[in-house]
Formats: sequence, structure tokens, C-alpha cells
Amino acid sequence: MKLKEKTGGVTAAKGFWAAGIEAAIKYQNRLDMAMIYSEIPCVAAGVFTSNLVKAAPVLWDKEVVENGEAVHAVIVNSGIANACTGEQGLDYCKRTATAAADALSVKENAVLIASTGVIGMQLPIDRIVAGVEQLVKSKEETLAAGSLAARAIMTTDTVSKEIAVEFELEGATITLGGMCKGSGMIHPNMCTMLGFLTTDLAISKEMLQQALSENVVDTFNMISVDGDTSTNDTLVIMANGSAGNEMITEKNDAYLLFLQALNYVNTWLAKKMAGDGEGATALFETKVIHADKKEQARVLAKSVICSSLTKAAIFGHDANWGRILCAMGYSGAQFNPDCMELFFESRAGKILIYQNGKAVDYSEEEATRVLSENEVTVVVDLKQGNEEAAAWGCDLTYDYVKINADYRS
Amino acid sequence: MKLKEKTGGVTAAKGFWAAGIEAAIKYQNRLDMAMIYSEIPCVAAGVFTSNLVKAAPVLWDKEVVENGEAVHAVIVNSGIANACTGEQGLDYCKRTATAAADALSVKENAVLIASTGVIGMQLPIDRIVAGVEQLVKSKEETLAAGSLAARAIMTTDTVSKEIAVEFELEGATITLGGMCKGSGMIHPNMCTMLGFLTTDLAISKEMLQQALSENVVDTFNMISVDGDTSTNDTLVIMANGSAGNEMITEKNDAYLLFLQALNYVNTWLAKKMAGDGEGATALFETKVIHADKKEQARVLAKSVICSSLTKAAIFGHDANWGRILCAMGYSGAQFNPDCMELFFESRAGKILIYQNGKAVDYSEEEATRVLSENEVTVVVDLKQGNEEAAAWGCDLTYDYVKINADYRS
Repeated sequence: MKLKEKTGGVTAAKGFWAAGIEAAIKYQNRLDMAMIYSEIPCVAAGVFTSNLVKAAPVLWDKEVVENGEAVHAVIVNSGIANACTGEQGLDYCKRTATAAADALSVKENAVLIASTGVIGMQLPIDRIVAGVEQLVKSKEETLAAGSLAARAIMTTDTVSKEIAVEFELEGATITLGGMCKGSGMIHPNMCTMLGFLTTDLAISKEMLQQALSENVVDTFNMISVDGDTSTNDTLVIMANGSAGNEMITEKNDAYLLFLQALNYVNTWLAKKMAGDGEGATALFETKVIHADKKEQARVLAKSVICSSLTKAAIFGHDANWGRILCAMGYSGAQFNPDCMELFFESRAGKILIYQNGKAVDYSEEEATRVLSENEVTVVVDLKQGNEEAAAWGCDLTYDYVKINADYRS
Repeated sequence: MKLKEKTGGVTAAKGFWAAGIEAAIKYQNRLDMAMIYSEIPCVAAGVFTSNLVKAAPVLWDKEVVENGEAVHAVIVNSGIANACTGEQGLDYCKRTATAAADALSVKENAVLIASTGVIGMQLPIDRIVAGVEQLVKSKEETLAAGSLAARAIMTTDTVSKEIAVEFELEGATITLGGMCKGSGMIHPNMCTMLGFLTTDLAISKEMLQQALSENVVDTFNMISVDGDTSTNDTLVIMANGSAGNEMITEKNDAYLLFLQALNYVNTWLAKKMAGDGEGATALFETKVIHADKKEQARVLAKSVICSSLTKAAIFGHDANWGRILCAMGYSGAQFNPDCMELFFESRAGKILIYQNGKAVDYSEEEATRVLSENEVTVVVDLKQGNEEAAAWGCDLTYDYVKINADYRS
């Protein structure tokens, strides 16, 4: 497929508007509310946290995605998560949706809500409602407005994360764009912290949900910053059909083409989120190749990027491969430690470390050089079959501790 | 039961000798080899790492414990783990046992071996063999010798960990003593890093194994420093029968009495290990009470003490209770967040934080005061049934990162 990256994020696809404003939700003088809007009704799909403790907006969105008809807007705030907030939290969610519905002249259940930030605090509902009105007034169909929205959903993220791609489908040009934010409490299970995708593709709601659910398994579900699955994890996609392609209603070639574009965008966003994990100095990738089974490869790759000891070694540029073998060993997946190979790889080169059950005679200096880049990869060759998987994390640093020892103040 | 703590560790029980020496295994001028010895043949039981990648000494000990007849000695080195060392590692294990067997005039399969330290490096076998001879020469039946052994097995531990207790059993006085070491790669599954228990109790091998296996579930398996299950986890117990009680061969009252003593010693050692986790400034305990099921209580308690975010908050003395709810929520165990209570507790007092689905109006200042002690407890009252469990971890600190970013140099 010819897939073209282009400038922009959630407003790259035709018919999508956005806004990002300062609403003083928890802090003064920072962007902290965002909106995505489509005048054309969208089909929407979503995947949400598997945490038993679900934030109020997650409960709201599940209802809208599962039982609502058409979606027109998403309202997001950063600073306060609206999780563990009881009945009042649910009521505030509804009041946010009502305010947006009134201002946009759409139904209340056409509005998705998402929150991120500290758990347990109640939203300042008056500022939220005022923020919604300001968002509606300032919305634009421009790339700049999309970027503002991407910045407004950030918490401890150091960079905003947005991407857009374009591809041809039976004569129509389809655009898919997205944005997401991390960067702590990231260990998605079913989906990730907050991610929003927009496309002008014409596709049925069922096929859209299927594509999203299928793809997160290998993208957002394969990253981890700290092993903590959030109460607010939300990934939603809105498709307004304005590209004019023939509606996708089954798993045909067009669907598979879309799945490729979706995989490209989700992989890019997921890696960005992992690399911008709280306090991180490096994106830490693990690729397991030549596995017997796909799930085996996934479990092994994820176990390595989740290991605190391995992550600390990556921070120290220390080729402490024993910790990698150890993390594979306790993952629960089968493999033969005596018949595999382990490499470190980065822009600076690729180096074989372990073979036939023990370390090869590699140069520690060379290994440290490879590990000193800001994107490093462990390649594990199981020499068993033809399946593979990748997982993405980051190093464990002083700054992770610093950020989280006193996050609330 | 009247259980009396007494001075000492592995040499507190009658008939046990010990030694600790400097053998320059990886570093100069530090104690790094230890021995426990009983002239009277012992029955031995052990639990070992569940990691698929098992260190050579773990493979050796499993064979001895499962198929050997009587055990006389344990030889331990710190500095190098003898894990991921292939055939040569297994051979070095055998040569260590042979050296000890020759010097002590016992059978080779009467010698247990344990190693801890860096993975992947080969042992300096000549210094090991010389060390064994020195250990045998310097062994003593004194409490001081037991303390030397407890110090010699340390790696990044900041304090040595030994305990002994005494209790009466049908007219005989039984002593049970033990020592253990942490303090990184601690997330035991089946047992812990390295722990050694000695007792003069008369008990059959089957009952000894049963008691140990049953008890680790609620003691060593309930601690975690960093979520990494080591390749070397080993906990062994030796019983030489010299106390003269009637041999325990079934689950009678005497067995239950011994199980209480074992639980006391293992809980004490496990908590010491958690509180002395790498870089830790505090022991972090979580107690789940009034649960429906024991396993539910265990899973919830362990999920909380394993959460990186919660551990960082404990380091910051920050009452970030939302992270605790979050960690309970992703644990996989069921509970009702709307009908539970959460307290922080320490020497400085006990404070209710969360009730009926949301935070109570507590004082942050008071909460920080409670959390500023070096032993802090989260109490979760599920208000469901009568089961409970406790788990022990430590805070996540700058020093954890420092220690592990450059452990090998």
C-alpha cells in the first residue's frame, strides 16, 4: 500500500474541527481543555481500560459508543481524572456533555468525554462548563487547531503527539489522523491512556470497532511505562465518511487497506507515548522474532520492556543482558535459553551478546555505545518459527521517581 | 503458643555450625562466601525460583533436595549468580560440592549450593575451591559464626538479616533460626532470593517440605521489591533432630506448633527483606481485611505493594490514595470500590482516607505525618467476609535507579 505521512493530527481528515484552550482546571496558564468536532455525524468505536475501577468519563463513553447513534464531538480535560469521584463525578460528566450538546446543537449522547490527571479530586464544574462554551466558540477546521488540542490533553508529557496519513482507496483519498497523551500510569490493557483518531473514511460502526479492537493488541497494548493500568484509558476513533469511498461493511480489501493505515498510525502514536514516558531518556524497544506463536512473542517482548531492572540498566547504558534473560524466564512463556540469540541494536549499530546458552565475547565498550542512543532495541531471536512481536517501553530514571514522588503538589 | 525470640540465626539451633569469609569472588575485602554445617545428618526441604531460566545452583539443589538422602552443608557465594552460564556453570557447581564433600568427609549430594550476584559471569572456580577449604577450617558452632555467614551472603543489602526463636514441644525445647538476603530482583514466586533456615526439630522430610511449601505462600511469596523474579531464588531448611522431640511424621498438634514458629520466622525475614529493598527508605505494608476469599486478599495486597506509582508516592510521603485504588482495580481480583474503606497507618497514627466511593475530608498534613515513618501500612477494609492477607514491599527511590543503572561496575 502507498501510505503517505502528512502534516497534522485530528483535523487532517476532511470535516473535522478542533480547539484547545486554557480553562484553569487544576493549574493556571496552561492549555487544559480540548475538543474534536465533526458537523457530519460520525460512527465511533472505542476501547477502554480493563481496570475494575473505571473513571466516570470511561463509563459515559462506553455507553455512548455501545448504544449511541451518531457521535459529533469529544470534550477532553487534563489536570483532573474524574476517577473515584462517586455519583458527583458521573453527574459532572453528564453536565459537561449537556453543555457541549447545547452549544453545538447536537444530542447529549453524541458527545464523548475524556479526563486525565489526578485521581479522586472533583472537577471544577463551573470552569468546565465555561471551558466548553469557549471551546465551541474557538473551534477551527485548521491543522493549527488540531495541534492546540494535542497540546491541551498533555499532563506530564514533554511533547505533544500527533500524526496523519493519507492513502488511496478505489479512487477516493482517505485521511486518518490522531493524537494521544501519556505519560505515567501507562500499561494499557485493552487500550491506552487517552488517544483520539479521526478519519473521513466511510465505514460501518461494526467494522470500525473490529478494526480498532484488532489493532490495539499489537500497538497500544504492547507499551508500558510503569506497569500501572490507568482508570481512564480511552482510545476512540470517529469516522465521518466525507471522503466518499464506498462504505466498508465487511472484511474486504478496502478494510485490510484501512487496517494497515490504522496500524501505522497507532504504532507511531504508541511508540511516541512509550518514548515520552515519565522521566524517560530513551525509547526501549524489544523485538522477539522467529517465535513459534504470536502470543508467545508478545508475552516475552512485553515482559522485557516491563522489567524495572532492565529499564534501569538501559538508563545506565549498561549491557546487563542477564536481566533480559531473567525477565523472559519469569514471563510465563516457553522458550529455550540454550538455543536463542540476543542482540542490542540502535542507530549506532547492532551487536550480538548471547548465543548457545551463554554470553559471546563482545566488547562492553561497543555495547555501551549502541545503548547510548535515544532509541534502543533488544532483538531476541528464538530460532523456533515464523511469528514475531514488538513491545515498547522506556528507561527507568531518577526523574520518574521525582515526578511521581510528589505528583499532586 | 509461647514463642520466644532469642539471639542468633542459623547457628542458634543445636548442632549447627557456620562460617563467613572473604574469598574475593567479585570484589576485594568483603565477606562473600558462607557455609552452614551440621555433623548430624539433616532432612532438608526447599522451594526454588519459578523462573524458566534457573541458575546452575538451583538445578543442583533441586536434585539434592528431591533425590538426596541426608544433607550436611550449604555453601553460598555472593557477587556472581552462576546463572546463564551453560555447561561450565553446572560443572563449577559440582566442583564446589566436591570440594566441600572432600573437606567435610560427606557425600557430594549432601552439599547444597547457592549463589547470588551478577548474571552471566563465570565463577572464579579456583578462588571458590580455596574459599570452601577456608570455610571448613574456620567453621564454628557459635552465634558469631552465624552472623558472619549472614553478612557474607549480602549483595546490595544494607543490613544482614537473621533471627532465631525457641518453643517448647512435648518437653523438648526446639530452636528455629534463619538468615536471608535481598535486595534487588525480589519478587519471589515459589520462594525468595536466598534464605536458609536451621532447626534441631525432629521431623520427616515430607512434613518439612510440606510446612515450607505451605508457609511461603503467605510470607516470602507476599513480598516484592521490583517485580523481577530472580533466576536464583532459593529457600532451604535443614532439620537435624537433635532437640530430641518425638519425630513429626503427620499433621498433628506438634506440626501445627512448628508451622506457627516457621510462620513467625519467615514473616520476620520476609519483612526485613522488603524493608531493605534496593534504595528503600521505608517498609511498605498492605493489609487487606474482611475479604471474601484468602486468594482475593493476597492478590489485592500484592498488587498495591507492586505498583511503581504507589511506591514513588510512599517515597514522597504523599497520600496519593487514587493510585492504590487503581492498583487494586487492575489486579484482576473482584471488590466493590463503593463499599470499602482505606486507611494509612504507622507508628504516628491511623487515618481514614476513603469511604463510600470517595475521599473523606482528611487532613493532608496529618496523612503526610503518618506516611513519614520508616514503616507504613495501607489497610484496605473490603467489608465482605472474614479473610485477610498482608504483603510487603518498599518505596521506589532515586537510589533504586542509581543502584541498578550501573550494578555491574
